[in-house]
This record gives sequence, structure tokens and C-alpha cells, in this order.
Amino acid sequence: MTRHAPDHPFDIALQLQPAGPDRYSGQTSAAYWNMVGPFGGTTAALALQAVLRHPDLLGEPLSLTVNYAGALVSGAFTVGARAVRTNRSTQHWTVELLQNDADGQPLITTTATVVTAARRETWSVNDTPMPTVSAPDSSAALPQVPGVEWIRRYEMRPIEGGIPRQWDGSGDSSLTRLWMRDNPPRPLDFCALAAMSDIFFPRVWLRRARQVPAGTVSLTVYFHASAQQLATAGDDYLLGQARAQ
Amino acid sequence: MTRHAPDHPFDIALQLQPAGPDRYSGQTSAAYWNMVGPFGGTTAALALQAVLRHPDLLGEPLSLTVNYAGALVSGAFTVGARAVRTNRSTQHWTVELLQNDADGQPLITTTATVVTAARRETWSVNDTPMPTVSAPDSSAALPQVPGVEWIRRYEMRPIEGGIPRQWDGSGDSSLTRLWMRDNPPRPLDFCALAAMSDIFFPRVWLRRARQVPAGTVSLTVYFHASAQQLATAGDDYLLGQARAQ
Repeated sequence: MTRHAPDHPFDIALQLQPAGPDRYSGQTSAAYWNMVGPFGGTTAALALQAVLRHPDLLGEPLSLTVNYAGALVSGAFTVGARAVRTNRSTQHWTVELLQNDADGQPLITTTATVVTAARRETWSVNDTPMPTVSAPDSSAALPQVPGVEWIRRYEMRPIEGGIPRQWDGSGDSSLTRLWMRDNPPRPLDFCALAAMSDIFFPRVWLRRARQVPAGTVSLTVYFHASAQQLATAGDDYLLGQARAQ
Repeated sequence: MTRHAPDHPFDIALQLQPAGPDRYSGQTSAAYWNMVGPFGGTTAALALQAVLRHPDLLGEPLSLTVNYAGALVSGAFTVGARAVRTNRSTQHWTVELLQNDADGQPLITTTATVVTAARRETWSVNDTPMPTVSAPDSSAALPQVPGVEWIRRYEMRPIEGGIPRQWDGSGDSSLTRLWMRDNPPRPLDFCALAAMSDIFFPRVWLRRARQVPAGTVSLTVYFHASAQQLATAGDDYLLGQARAQ
């Protein structure tokens, strides 16, 4: 069987080859490079992707936790993904990303857990109402940042709480709202949503209006939408919101 | 060296015996029994406890994710806790709880990940201000629930969003605020805080004013306080808040 080769940079970054039971191999993507390693969103999406393409998969993702143990270096990596428990309607996965160190020993760079489930039609209400915000075309897209390649892979249109223009310590809020989508546009799916969860610059930059070294250490995503609901979003803009606690 | 035997039911529930490298054994606690298994809060605390008493531990907990793969049955269990990566100031742990099935085969009941770190003195601000609420003694303590033992182990004083008195489908908010502490009182620490994170009854009960079957599937706790800060809380009441999204 021939597979249709995906040509979107995100699909290329998510390509995994079977490498034995519960094991896949992949290559880091220069298109999503951050300053000292890949964009954490792609790493989260890869952990999820290994589960979603696993032959044992039951249902759709409910939750994903990714812990960034160490930066990946450019090159080959391995993903281990194992269904450690399969119930009637839920399934529990443990995932790890590994790269060989200088001595050829596998080193864990990322740990993750995923819960998947057969979604059932049930009572549902949105308890976080959609805020009243301006339309995407009324905000300018964020400019590119020299040397930070992954930012070019997203179109981000801040509504409020954009990156401070003056780093003068004057920040007083940590709320960011922005319209976001892949660049070039790509239909929304679970992996794209997982990646976009790591799109927000560190809250402390906004709250302090001061740039301090910061990186994502751990990230949890709860998926409240089905694959079908995500598909209806197509490649339109998505409203993203972040706030510190 | 003799260890002082803890006599608080929570400390008894958290007792773990070394059972080989990266391995501990424990016993479920009748004092924290829920309807079909232990209170999920104790399970979360046990996953954390295995890390906190591990000889390789670096620093204090930053984050904890617990996935409830299957209910524990009454009796013995094993906890595996492994430091999969230790960096200069952060450490990444994978944890699992196991029980033997009817055929004596180990079955994973719980998966967890923990990130610990050497906390440094750094800029800090509370971005979620303490809400204005009434004092603990102005709310009545929740009554006990026949057949649900763990509820007796906490003193819960709802301020708003208590368990509906009439199950008539009239709910319109999912916010609960309550004062809470161990019963009998016990000094606050990371494990107690992890356990209390699962104290809230399902949000859907409140939002719908309708009791539907629901259980915790996955829980993530971010610790924003140091051991020293928790210790200053002593055994006083803690304000808990929960809201659905």
C-alpha cells in the first residue's frame, strides 16, 4: 500500500516509522526549531501521534500530559508508546521519547501519559462562554522572530496580552487572547491542537514586562471536543487564551 | 533506627515498605474507602509519596499527573517509582501502582508522572487573588455520607456551590468554594495537598443539579508553594476552589 505523502510541514514533522512493537522512529523537524531544541508543541504532538497511529488504539484522546525532561537534539529519535491498560471504554497509555547520547545509550528526553476513550453522546454544556473579541482580520499578525523558525509555522493575531513592546517591568496582567492557526493553514485535528497548547510565550514575560529565561517543563491538555467537532473547525482561526495562576 | 509510628489515618494510609530497587509495597486503607475502591486522593498521594521517600529524590514537587486506569481492590499493592531523568535542577519521575489480578499477574491500576525541582528564590506574585469569603466557622461542616468512609477523614465547610439539596436539574454554575482540612487536623504537606485536589464532587452534579455516574480519570496538580510555605499553613483550614470548563 502506498501512503499519500503529506506535504504540510506539520505532517512531515509528525511522520513516524514503525520500529518494533510499541516503538516508532522519527526525525526532528528544522521547520519547527526553537532556540535550543524543537518547539515543545511538536514534541507534545509526536507523543500523541504515536498513540493515535498505534494499532491497539481505543477511541479518541481525553487527556495528554507531556513532561519535557531534556531538549531533543537535531536528528533521529525513538518514541515508545504502550497501552498499559485497556478498559471497556477507556485506555491508558505511557509514552516516552528517547535519543541516544554521545555513548550511544538511549536517554529519555520526554515522558508522557495519554488517556483515550470511546466518546459517547452525553449531556454537555460549555461552562466557559466564548468571550466577545474582535475578528481575526482586525489584529495584525505577529511578525516573525529572527532565529526562531517555529514561529513562522503559525499565524498568530493577538487580541490582548501580546508580547510586551517595552520591557520596563510595567506588566499587571497575565491574560493573553489571540487568534491562531497553522501557517500555511491546515485542518484542525488532535495533534495540531496539542501543539498549539504550547504556543503561548511565558506568562512571566507578560506579567512582569521583563524577559527572563523560561521553558515549558510540563503541559497537560484536556480534549473536550471530538474528532468530528475539530474537523468542523477546518483550517479557520482558533481562539487561544492563556492566563497564569 | 526506629521510626516514629505515625498515628494519623492519612500517614497510615501512606505507609510504604521498600520492595526492591524503585519499588515499594503498601496496603489500601479502609479509612479512606470510597464506593468502589480507595478515595482517588489517597492514590494520588501514594504516587507522590513513593517519589518523596525515594533515595534519589532531587528537590520538591512541581507537578503531578495521576491517571486512574482501574480501581484498586482492598489489600496489597506495589508502587514503582523511577527517576527517568535527573538534570541539574529538575528531575522527571514515572510512577505506577500495580495489583495482582485473579491469576497472580500484575495489573497496572494507576499511572503517574512527577516533576521535582530544586526551588530557587525568584520573583513571584499571586495572579489569582484570594477571594473575599466568609470565615470557616460561619459555614456548617458537611455531614457524613453513609457508606462513604473517606468523607469522614475531611472537614469540609462549603462557602458556595455545595452539593445540591434538590436534584431537580436547576443548576446554573459549576463553582464550588469550601474550607477544608484533614479530620482530625494534620499539618499540611505535599501529599495532603495532592489528596485534597480530588476532594471535589463531580462538577456535572452541581452544574446540572442531577446525580450522574462520574469518576476521576486524570488529575494534574501544579505545586506553587514550597514545603516551607505549606508548613506555615499548619493544620489550619485551606480554601479550595473548583470550576468546570
